[in-house]
Amino acid sequence: MSGEAYEVTGAAHGVNGAAHASGECPALDVGLLAPGRAGSPTEHATSDQAFLQAMLDAEAALTRAQAAMGTAPASAAAEVTAAAVAARFDARALAVRARAGGNPVIPLVADLTAAVPPEAAPYVHRGATSQDILDTAAMLVAARTLDLLLADLALLEGELARLARAHRDTALPGRTLTQHAAPTTFGLKAAGWRALVLDARDRAARVRGGLPVQLGGAVGTLAAAQAYGTAGPHAPHAPHAPDAQDLTLRLITTYAHELHLSEPDLPWHTLRTPLADLAGALALTAGALGKLAADVLTLSRTEIGELSEGGAGGSSAMPHKANPVRATLIAAAAQRAPALAATLYASLPAADERPPGAWHAEWEPLRDLLRLVGGAARDAVDLCAHLQVHPATMRAHLDLTAGLLTSERLVVELTPSLGRARAAELVSAAAAKVRTGGGTLADAVAAELTALPPRPHGADGPAPPVPDLTTLTDLTDPTHWTGCAEALTDRALKRR
Amino acid sequence: MSGEAYEVTGAAHGVNGAAHASGECPALDVGLLAPGRAGSPTEHATSDQAFLQAMLDAEAALTRAQAAMGTAPASAAAEVTAAAVAARFDARALAVRARAGGNPVIPLVADLTAAVPPEAAPYVHRGATSQDILDTAAMLVAARTLDLLLADLALLEGELARLARAHRDTALPGRTLTQHAAPTTFGLKAAGWRALVLDARDRAARVRGGLPVQLGGAVGTLAAAQAYGTAGPHAPHAPHAPDAQDLTLRLITTYAHELHLSEPDLPWHTLRTPLADLAGALALTAGALGKLAADVLTLSRTEIGELSEGGAGGSSAMPHKANPVRATLIAAAAQRAPALAATLYASLPAADERPPGAWHAEWEPLRDLLRLVGGAARDAVDLCAHLQVHPATMRAHLDLTAGLLTSERLVVELTPSLGRARAAELVSAAAAKVRTGGGTLADAVAAELTALPPRPHGADGPAPPVPDLTTLTDLTDPTHWTGCAEALTDRALKRR
Amino acid sequence: MSGEAYEVTGAAHGVNGAAHASGECPALDVGLLAPGRAGSPTEHATSDQAFLQAMLDAEAALTRAQAAMGTAPASAAAEVTAAAVAARFDARALAVRARAGGNPVIPLVADLTAAVPPEAAPYVHRGATSQDILDTAAMLVAARTLDLLLADLALLEGELARLARAHRDTALPGRTLTQHAAPTTFGLKAAGWRALVLDARDRAARVRGGLPVQLGGAVGTLAAAQAYGTAGPHAPHAPHAPDAQDLTLRLITTYAHELHLSEPDLPWHTLRTPLADLAGALALTAGALGKLAADVLTLSRTEIGELSEGGAGGSSAMPHKANPVRATLIAAAAQRAPALAATLYASLPAADERPPGAWHAEWEPLRDLLRLVGGAARDAVDLCAHLQVHPATMRAHLDLTAGLLTSERLVVELTPSLGRARAAELVSAAAAKVRTGGGTLADAVAAELTALPPRPHGADGPAPPVPDLTTLTDLTDPTHWTGCAEALTDRALKRR
Amino acid sequence: MSGEAYEVTGAAHGVNGAAHASGECPALDVGLLAPGRAGSPTEHATSDQAFLQAMLDAEAALTRAQAAMGTAPASAAAEVTAAAVAARFDARALAVRARAGGNPVIPLVADLTAAVPPEAAPYVHRGATSQDILDTAAMLVAARTLDLLLADLALLEGELARLARAHRDTALPGRTLTQHAAPTTFGLKAAGWRALVLDARDRAARVRGGLPVQLGGAVGTLAAAQAYGTAGPHAPHAPHAPDAQDLTLRLITTYAHELHLSEPDLPWHTLRTPLADLAGALALTAGALGKLAADVLTLSRTEIGELSEGGAGGSSAMPHKANPVRATLIAAAAQRAPALAATLYASLPAADERPPGAWHAEWEPLRDLLRLVGGAARDAVDLCAHLQVHPATMRAHLDLTAGLLTSERLVVELTPSLGRARAAELVSAAAAKVRTGGGTLADAVAAELTALPPRPHGADGPAPPVPDLTTLTDLTDPTHWTGCAEALTDRALKRR
Repeated sequence: MSGEAYEVTGAAHGVNGAAHASGECPALDVGLLAPGRAGSPTEHATSDQAFLQAMLDAEAALTRAQAAMGTAPASAAAEVTAAAVAARFDARALAVRARAGGNPVIPLVADLTAAVPPEAAPYVHRGATSQDILDTAAMLVAARTLDLLLADLALLEGELARLARAHRDTALPGRTLTQHAAPTTFGLKAAGWRALVLDARDRAARVRGGLPVQLGGAVGTLAAAQAYGTAGPHAPHAPHAPDAQDLTLRLITTYAHELHLSEPDLPWHTLRTPLADLAGALALTAGALGKLAADVLTLSRTEIGELSEGGAGGSSAMPHKANPVRATLIAAAAQRAPALAATLYASLPAADERPPGAWHAEWEPLRDLLRLVGGAARDAVDLCAHLQVHPATMRAHLDLTAGLLTSERLVVELTPSLGRARAAELVSAAAAKVRTGGGTLADAVAAELTALPPRPHGADGPAPPVPDLTTLTDLTDPTHWTGCAEALTDRALKRR
Repeated sequence: MSGEAYEVTGAAHGVNGAAHASGECPALDVGLLAPGRAGSPTEHATSDQAFLQAMLDAEAALTRAQAAMGTAPASAAAEVTAAAVAARFDARALAVRARAGGNPVIPLVADLTAAVPPEAAPYVHRGATSQDILDTAAMLVAARTLDLLLADLALLEGELARLARAHRDTALPGRTLTQHAAPTTFGLKAAGWRALVLDARDRAARVRGGLPVQLGGAVGTLAAAQAYGTAGPHAPHAPHAPDAQDLTLRLITTYAHELHLSEPDLPWHTLRTPLADLAGALALTAGALGKLAADVLTLSRTEIGELSEGGAGGSSAMPHKANPVRATLIAAAAQRAPALAATLYASLPAADERPPGAWHAEWEPLRDLLRLVGGAARDAVDLCAHLQVHPATMRAHLDLTAGLLTSERLVVELTPSLGRARAAELVSAAAAKVRTGGGTLADAVAAELTALPPRPHGADGPAPPVPDLTTLTDLTDPTHWTGCAEALTDRALKRR
Repeated sequence: MSGEAYEVTGAAHGVNGAAHASGECPALDVGLLAPGRAGSPTEHATSDQAFLQAMLDAEAALTRAQAAMGTAPASAAAEVTAAAVAARFDARALAVRARAGGNPVIPLVADLTAAVPPEAAPYVHRGATSQDILDTAAMLVAARTLDLLLADLALLEGELARLARAHRDTALPGRTLTQHAAPTTFGLKAAGWRALVLDARDRAARVRGGLPVQLGGAVGTLAAAQAYGTAGPHAPHAPHAPDAQDLTLRLITTYAHELHLSEPDLPWHTLRTPLADLAGALALTAGALGKLAADVLTLSRTEIGELSEGGAGGSSAMPHKANPVRATLIAAAAQRAPALAATLYASLPAADERPPGAWHAEWEPLRDLLRLVGGAARDAVDLCAHLQVHPATMRAHLDLTAGLLTSERLVVELTPSLGRARAAELVSAAAAKVRTGGGTLADAVAAELTALPPRPHGADGPAPPVPDLTTLTDLTDPTHWTGCAEALTDRALKRR
Repeated sequence: MSGEAYEVTGAAHGVNGAAHASGECPALDVGLLAPGRAGSPTEHATSDQAFLQAMLDAEAALTRAQAAMGTAPASAAAEVTAAAVAARFDARALAVRARAGGNPVIPLVADLTAAVPPEAAPYVHRGATSQDILDTAAMLVAARTLDLLLADLALLEGELARLARAHRDTALPGRTLTQHAAPTTFGLKAAGWRALVLDARDRAARVRGGLPVQLGGAVGTLAAAQAYGTAGPHAPHAPHAPDAQDLTLRLITTYAHELHLSEPDLPWHTLRTPLADLAGALALTAGALGKLAADVLTLSRTEIGELSEGGAGGSSAMPHKANPVRATLIAAAAQRAPALAATLYASLPAADERPPGAWHAEWEPLRDLLRLVGGAARDAVDLCAHLQVHPATMRAHLDLTAGLLTSERLVVELTPSLGRARAAELVSAAAAKVRTGGGTLADAVAAELTALPPRPHGADGPAPPVPDLTTLTDLTDPTHWTGCAEALTDRALKRR
């Protein structure tokens, strides 16, 4: 849409585009609805300012790469690099002017060209297309944010390793479908959280390592880059030299080198694997942190109280509230991540050499995903660094069901004498009595055993004796029924 | 999390929360990645500033409602109302301070309380909980944005009605599974787009009309509001008066009246129907606009060229490009909306009296959805106001397949003489010859008919004569095979 | 793809399409992974058999409508109707043959045509396109499933009304962000669940009432239907009669009448509002049931135990387990619904007159959504019919925090004497002492009050006296701090 | 829920659970709504029958692993293995009975136990929990389906390599935002599709290689497995032997070995990385195939016709239609995959040791995703094996815009003489004249050049001469403006 048409539209809507473009800070979004990321390093790293700087970094690196290849003067590279400072550009004006062509690179190229001396101007954005710059900038922002994220995941796994070691032997009720099931240890829980964090770290690190630059020109053939590389005083190679294409491809290598990103096999304007890889790694990370938060939220419920946040948050109405705010904000991020990842996956079927919409639909969801996950990781570090564990409460809860947590153990123990089926039946009957009538499982099982008819001697010889009440009481001690929790914890902690 | 804990965290992350809170404009998000909404009225109506003002509006209305009920002094209401001006508050600082309790209302109440004279201070936020204010603010923002959206949808349906009327008889190929199928009219297409816009309008208007205030206090029982209403000089009713509860409920009515929103049956802190209704109406609207955009994008392809955008957009590389930018940006919005709506639907199972995360996960997706759809509606108005229709190209395309578009018509016409099965077979054979060998369908069918063995006289008397080449040529005129397109267009245009 | 091509492919994949098409029951999906809907009426109503019958119903109704219009013989209508019995067709063979053209209607029309006497054959599917039949069938299935769903929602609201009335005065802790916040009543909770169910019912009923037939022919112009209606012995109207189009449109009316569905304004092949409306209503219903399930799951946790499922489920390992299985399965359905709805919303931007993929992507998600929600409603009825409420446990939990639940009340009561700010500060300090050092809030506040310096007489006269310990003890009784819970419950129950 | 309770419910719903459980084939889902996967090997590999067999395989492998460890008799392992044949079990009855406990393993264990001789019965499911079996079965199904998928991806990359090589030099218009932009080659397009397929293959293969067994017992501690391993005649190790835990962990190794799956570090009942990895790899694969389909759909449009499907599909109404059905069905699968992946990601925050709902919500989406992607890969192989490429049409389209495709080239060429800014301006002006007034770009640029004022001699010496019309005509030959397309294609084809 031309500028004229836009003004007409603006008028029709009672909005003056120009006014918005004036550079005043419209305080559009300052994180007011986003406590999960407000003030975080990843919020900073994913701001419009950060994207703008990354676009400028991409432009400058492109000119430098051409200079390194001998197809642009070194002075032009230096001038473009010097001018490529985000603070000198009006991000809001660029945003509004981006409406004309549908992306912010078009007005940015105009402004950057105007910002360098005339002799450098022809070397700005030379041979590139908007998507080369915006995609490269997105990868730069992703790389910078993933570095912050990986640092927080490293802190986090350290905190979780500490918790797992400290509570290697702290038993608590394992819960399935909300009900006490059998004992486990808090060490094993923490080791599980850590395993998820390491899974997330491994995937995020792998994706980080492969983030590619984008460089393909108008339709991904590098035609203009090749032409500029074979003409003029700075084009040392004849246009039809047999190696002109291969020489041009080296520009991608040099460009990637300038930006510390990877070199792709092909321009990926509509081959969006890097976005999908980011979506997958970030959705997994969000979910990993979300699992930790879900457990903390449950275990810090008023009635449960096995955990509490170190610096719990207040309320606008109730002076006594101490809310698990860090876990709440992590849970909120985890709830949003899958849909954002889905949007990125849905952009994969990008038509033609540049799709009308699928590309544009990626930008904000990628940023939101990076930012939400980065903020959640910050909160998770806080949460775990200050998490208060209450082993006495855990211990008390093990007794809440009077031995029922060990029901499966009694089946195991009675199987030699009763056979597994009868053993399971007997323990079920005893458990039902405990649930409805009170008493302990040891007592109830002892009563059931007493009521059994004597077992006749058979071909197998006498049945093994059944345990007495003392033995039963010992067998129903939940702290002795944690299986391989310690060994699993130790094994999991060996992973680095 | 306490302030102290936060600072520790900030330090650990190399970030000084205080610095971020200083009120400088961090240019976090100014729409650089969002050309679809940059500079639009709905962007303005959904900014952090707009949310902040809406929260302040909610606080002021609450105090005014209490004054109207006689439970707060009128002067306090006036003071709170006077102080409730967003520009006086530091949105960024509120965002960062919101981290402590997990929502921005907590620090805002502190700042608003400090901003009024001491004698008004006790009447700020009296009886309310954070969620009362934030939810009410979200509904205010939604109401204001929907009003803008509805105005644009009204403009849009007008443009589409104009197009439908103007092209009521303009035939073009109907396409199914990407292939020319049978003729339709551009009038019917435009009438269909308009029908979707009216569907969206009806649903958006219905939702707009029902947007409720939120008022329930800490856990939705209005306990504090009731207590404040029955104590002190401004509490005319004895606390245990039989009608104390009913009187308190009137506060909701008054509050709703102050804000021009609806009164809910129940506080809906965890009964999130309003969010689901918004999600549904906005996702439908996005999809309706997306359908229009999808058709425009297809029909303005270089090879098709039946439509073109009036003020098409340029390229950073190719001087000749005239891109359908408005349709592209609408398509991008339509691609994002379903996942945002899904996030809102996923927040419905909100646990307890306030969920840890599901509520917090709603805020940004609701804003994004409002803003994306609002921006897309703006673009759709632009698009349709300037859309260029090329009837001659449409007419030429009707002939592209040499009559194949009317193949079904020939089956109809030959059925009386050949029976439907034989007619279909014969036309299929003729169509295959046209596709592979060229020529027109009329010629090919005439040839097939000539090759038919004579049909014996049967009990039914002589078969009806088959059409000759002249008749066949007439029957294969695509402009005579548009069925009820005109009547359907007329009927659809009657809907208001 | 032609049959031949398919066989080649089959061979390449080592699969013989013909073998799969033999009519043996491959037991593909019998609900093994879907306990939430296995054996439910809605599962039956959404089976492939049910869709097949609905397609046949649509075909038969179309011929009957043409007979009623005088454009087909009554005998043909009777024959088609008689043949349209799903059990006579091989659903699996149709599924495999559907691959050739991409939808099951194409082979079904062939089989149905073969199943009627030759003289009726020409009247099968006359003037229709595949999408007319499949869309109409989908609406029939939706209508039949929604009827079952609405019946279950009616049962459910009845159960919830019963619970709300029975527990109108049963106090329990209200919980926010997982922490005890202030008292509420179980009656209000149940009334809230019911309000959501009524919201769902209202939306589902509205959508149910508007479900339209689909009839437009190849590209939505009804060209063939019009031609068949104006030619031959059964076509009383001359093709060029001025009212031919209007007469043809009456066919839609008659067709809708035959199927007890609504008549659409326009063929909606690519105007997919009905799908979006279904998506919205079903996602809301899933969420409404999911909220109920979320609360039941929380309140039946071992440590909480305020609710329990009447017929809780067992475990394959632990004899003592009594799991909230109904709530679990409802929660699972609620977790899946938003993404399914998103898929339907994402199909709205359907290109051209029939989109290549967006239409096909709707079929299974619509079925899944209907079936999941229907199954969840069945489970919700079960759950609520047998839900065990434990008021004594609720009562005990109110005391768990020694008065903290009423902290806000003390602020209200102390405000006249101390001012609100000082009152809040004092209560906060007392609450902190209770949390860390034990004791009751009444004691702690009394101690804080005693420690206050005497307030000097000022212009306002003597400060009101502060409450003594007895009064404080009374004020901290949680059962007296339920605000308007009863009035809100009563009001909500008035809604029908 | 107990059996009794269920019957009550069944009656209330007018449904007799027992009748459904009779083993008759209810033809629930036979693929009628799923032409994309009907009859495919992956449909077979993901059927309920396949899941049932996989659960039985898991049970049998567990007993065999225990036998191998010396904790169960070899004869029991043989008996369980012999009985573990899906055809002997009633899948539908299991589905309905699964409602009681919420998963099908519970009734399956009962039936399997009854199916083996009494002496083997105690060794069925010994030490396991339902989730061990269902998760392991899901991984087996995933492994088997991924093997089929990987085989099809291998075929597909072969077809695409063939196409890329064959059309290495076939130029066609590159299109961006739907408009002709600059020339590219069909070889490069095919190489790009292949690169995506290889990306998908790499990720799917990596995930395939790591699919783990699940074994943890009730709460993931292996307590029962350990106890069974240290008691009774088949338990060689004393219960308190220091190495009892480590010995028990070896059971996981052995179990994994039996099933050719990986051994996990920890039981992953609520550490759902394997599901997330599957979601990511499958969503990427769907998107990769979807990109291919999107391009085929566009390029086979009637007006474009640069590609056509070899065995295009028919229509129920129009005899002439030849639809791109394979691409349509792939596109439909691609449209559904992101939401299904999102559901799996949303299950990551799985509470406690087994979540109430999040686990159950995974089963069908995982199956759907495997099946959709598997079916789409089958279709993609078909599509590419028979794809018809029409180079003459591509060539013709290069001329459609009379040289505009090369506009950027002219800017490059004119830059030495005019400077880049003036060159771009001049070409833009010329391009605008071509678009509105016809003629060729060469002519229009020549005219613009003629109209230029003579450039004065400056410090730089005379300006380089501008190209004449002949040169311009040569420069605007689109087939000479494909940049590095060939080199990129060659490079991409080197990837294996």
